[in-house]
Amino acid sequence: MRKVTLGLANSLDNYIARKDGGSDWLRWNKEVAEISAKFMKTVDAILIGRKTYEVMLAFGQTSYPGPKNYVFSHSKKKIAAFIQTAMNGEEKQKRSKRTDTKNPVEFICEDAASFVRKLKCHKGKGIAVFGGGELARSLFEADLINEVVLNVHPVLLGSGVPLFHQMKKQIDLQFLNSKPLKAGSLILSYRVKH
Amino acid sequence: MRKVTLGLANSLDNYIARKDGGSDWLRWNKEVAEISAKFMKTVDAILIGRKTYEVMLAFGQTSYPGPKNYVFSHSKKKIAAFIQTAMNGEEKQKRSKRTDTKNPVEFICEDAASFVRKLKCHKGKGIAVFGGGELARSLFEADLINEVVLNVHPVLLGSGVPLFHQMKKQIDLQFLNSKPLKAGSLILSYRVKH
Repeated sequence: MRKVTLGLANSLDNYIARKDGGSDWLRWNKEVAEISAKFMKTVDAILIGRKTYEVMLAFGQTSYPGPKNYVFSHSKKKIAAFIQTAMNGEEKQKRSKRTDTKNPVEFICEDAASFVRKLKCHKGKGIAVFGGGELARSLFEADLINEVVLNVHPVLLGSGVPLFHQMKKQIDLQFLNSKPLKAGSLILSYRVKH
Repeated sequence: MRKVTLGLANSLDNYIARKDGGSDWLRWNKEVAEISAKFMKTVDAILIGRKTYEVMLAFGQTSYPGPKNYVFSHSKKKIAAFIQTAMNGEEKQKRSKRTDTKNPVEFICEDAASFVRKLKCHKGKGIAVFGGGELARSLFEADLINEVVLNVHPVLLGSGVPLFHQMKKQIDLQFLNSKPLKAGSLILSYRVKH
């Protein structure tokens, strides 16, 4: 069965973005890029929630390069709008001769948990959940997440978009590793106990 | 100036207790006891918020042994009730010949930030904030906390009493150290940048 990893950067007070989706507080550098590149080689699917994708589009990012991108939304209207925005973005990229981030996205209208349950049974590499908190919650509650890898940033944002939301059940974890990065953040990894 | 340390055990999803104050998920063992005893030698004052103290009393704990305990509440009625409950508790302890946890508590009616600002100027050892999240928030917002030491437990509780609350300002931190404990939790320490 394919492993599903929740992989996100967060603040010490449980936020993944400012209220407006802003990520100016994130420390992106060579060390993080190397860890990220190594991780990306282990996955061939990236799962993205509707709200997170809206923020990505607002910042001009239509997809993550490399693995197949799946974006979840129950609203067909939203999906149609996403497709239009993504196409416009790709068109712009084509005109500017940038092809580096062009990567087709599959929009999923069905329930995320049932889709991911099926996806895990197909042959393939790992599956990454890149946000947001609401998608993570529905997958935690359906017992579909196997590992949690966080890049905990040394900041209390005070407000923002939460990583961990309230859940109907407790999830027990097993600590795997902690690795302080030079820029002051800390990579924490946990295995989900099932 | 005396150092103020926020020292708490939390779940990975930002809770310090279950909704009813329950702490059955905390891993208390010899290793934690040794770290705690070492830390307690560096402080001579412990600050406790009103709600946290109510939970302590509900669990039969009238004070932390050793350093002076300060409990904050704006309500004189609440304070009178606390004194009565604490006295009853001490009476019970006396009758059962247990004297180990008997330690007088000072109840503070004034604003926590102004009290702590004055306390920091007096001579003495370190000051520990043992909860809860609301007291921590008011001290963070008043720039009175110098260090954060967390014992992060490997669990997502899903709901409970939050550690970090929404704040009016961002607090920048400097990562100091991470130390995995044998029982699976992780001690994280940060210095607050002022």
